[in-house]
Amino acid sequence: MKCRKCGEPAAIELRRHNAAFCAPDFQEFFKKQVREAIRKHRMFEPGEQILVAVSGGKDSLALWDVLIDDGYRTSGLYLDLGIFDYSVESKAKCETFAAARGVPLIVSRVEEEVGAPVPVIQSVTRRPPCSGCGLSKRYLMNRVALEGGFPVVATGHNLDDEAATLFGSVMHWQMDALPRQSPALASTHPKLVRRVKPLYRLSERETAAYTIMRKIDYIVEECPFAKGATSIAHKEILTRMEEASPGAKHNFLFGFLEKARPAFEKAEGVTLNECARCGQVTTGTLCAFCKLSDQVKRSR
Amino acid sequence: MKCRKCGEPAAIELRRHNAAFCAPDFQEFFKKQVREAIRKHRMFEPGEQILVAVSGGKDSLALWDVLIDDGYRTSGLYLDLGIFDYSVESKAKCETFAAARGVPLIVSRVEEEVGAPVPVIQSVTRRPPCSGCGLSKRYLMNRVALEGGFPVVATGHNLDDEAATLFGSVMHWQMDALPRQSPALASTHPKLVRRVKPLYRLSERETAAYTIMRKIDYIVEECPFAKGATSIAHKEILTRMEEASPGAKHNFLFGFLEKARPAFEKAEGVTLNECARCGQVTTGTLCAFCKLSDQVKRSR
Repeated sequence: MKCRKCGEPAAIELRRHNAAFCAPDFQEFFKKQVREAIRKHRMFEPGEQILVAVSGGKDSLALWDVLIDDGYRTSGLYLDLGIFDYSVESKAKCETFAAARGVPLIVSRVEEEVGAPVPVIQSVTRRPPCSGCGLSKRYLMNRVALEGGFPVVATGHNLDDEAATLFGSVMHWQMDALPRQSPALASTHPKLVRRVKPLYRLSERETAAYTIMRKIDYIVEECPFAKGATSIAHKEILTRMEEASPGAKHNFLFGFLEKARPAFEKAEGVTLNECARCGQVTTGTLCAFCKLSDQVKRSR
Repeated sequence: MKCRKCGEPAAIELRRHNAAFCAPDFQEFFKKQVREAIRKHRMFEPGEQILVAVSGGKDSLALWDVLIDDGYRTSGLYLDLGIFDYSVESKAKCETFAAARGVPLIVSRVEEEVGAPVPVIQSVTRRPPCSGCGLSKRYLMNRVALEGGFPVVATGHNLDDEAATLFGSVMHWQMDALPRQSPALASTHPKLVRRVKPLYRLSERETAAYTIMRKIDYIVEECPFAKGATSIAHKEILTRMEEASPGAKHNFLFGFLEKARPAFEKAEGVTLNECARCGQVTTGTLCAFCKLSDQVKRSR
């Protein structure tokens, strides 16, 4: 197999694009896909400070790498979930990356903010661990961005992540989640920053290849709480469909964004208030994060 | 395991209903589900003549059986696709059933109507065999109903069929197919009869159990052309999801019907004309059936 660009031996084949690339041309292809995502969804404005949420995994570090390389002004945000060795190691990966690139890294500890680390939150709430963890992450990303004057948070969600989330929403027809499924969510309130996913055009396999070619050291293990999560089962289903028909994931996600998503957008938006406790945005009186944090504190 | 109704030993467990039934009570449950489908979607009006499309398989014969038993005035329609032994045997099952119940059976031959049987249509059009076959079946069901004065055609599509069709439409976000996915399609033109699917609340396994308990002799083999069809792959995916989480198929289909389908209904409907050749309904000048039949005749 030869590189589509230069004709040299290919390092990676991309079946859904019916293409193969050598390592340098693949990295250029990868960056072009990120630039296309940014352009198409007007993710950033010139000179903006971008907060990049980094987990220490391949996706978020690949994203940060591309943004730094393309001259964006970025800071990393590492949320320490307190998940034993997994958190210790993933934090170290982020610190090493930030130090090598000379870029700032903000660290926020869930234990400090919620009153307990994720494993304790799980046992207190008796909800699936990903539930309280996701809620805390979304809340803290937004609050840290607001406090630091960042108008936008970028996350490393890739094509596989987005397709799996969509699959889950569709299997249950979650009418609240479907209109929110987008590579770019605008700010709908002064206390809500923009959220963008510049890797949504690239698969998990492609971000892994990019980080390896770029010699970025990342945490390979998955979060120990992710085992048995339905999102993983959904990823496996989509991966089997992709093997049978290359492009299946892409067509599912992009078909939704282009054709179906407009049908789910609500005529009127929800009313956003400020939480009586913390002042962050909520649809009720007390936000879900403050309720969670109350529940955790009462139990200790 | 004991029957939910009478406490006698159960003959079948229905995990998604968290229930088990003895054979007589399961048959009563089965009929109730059909009655509920008919009631909820106002499928039939009193005294109407119903054309029941029968293939000789378990679903359509189970449907016919329930409708006859509940006192509906029905005729069967067998479409002879000309698929070798499969068609010979499935026709015989329908004839035996009709003779035993003393109900009329209309037989229409695709070879006579299109100019060639399904295996030839496939090789001429070079499209997947299910494509020309489905088109011919929908056309002939409607035409035979019109000619015979039947205002409605009932088909044996079950929960698994409907969920698999929906799954395929969603994976490609087929914006034309999604609003048409319904247990009951109204007549939108004087030359278009109503189409209803009274088994949409019952799974494949449940219709199989019903026909076996009722000692209805049906053709067990699948159509030889169905092998490798994507609808079968989609059924397998849904069956694995059902095993992991009983009710998954039901929630997927019913969630769509209740919550999402309205979002896909078009503001304005399509304009329906009468085909210049056969007078049946089409969105163009010549209908797809006449075009297919022309293509078949030209090739012979």
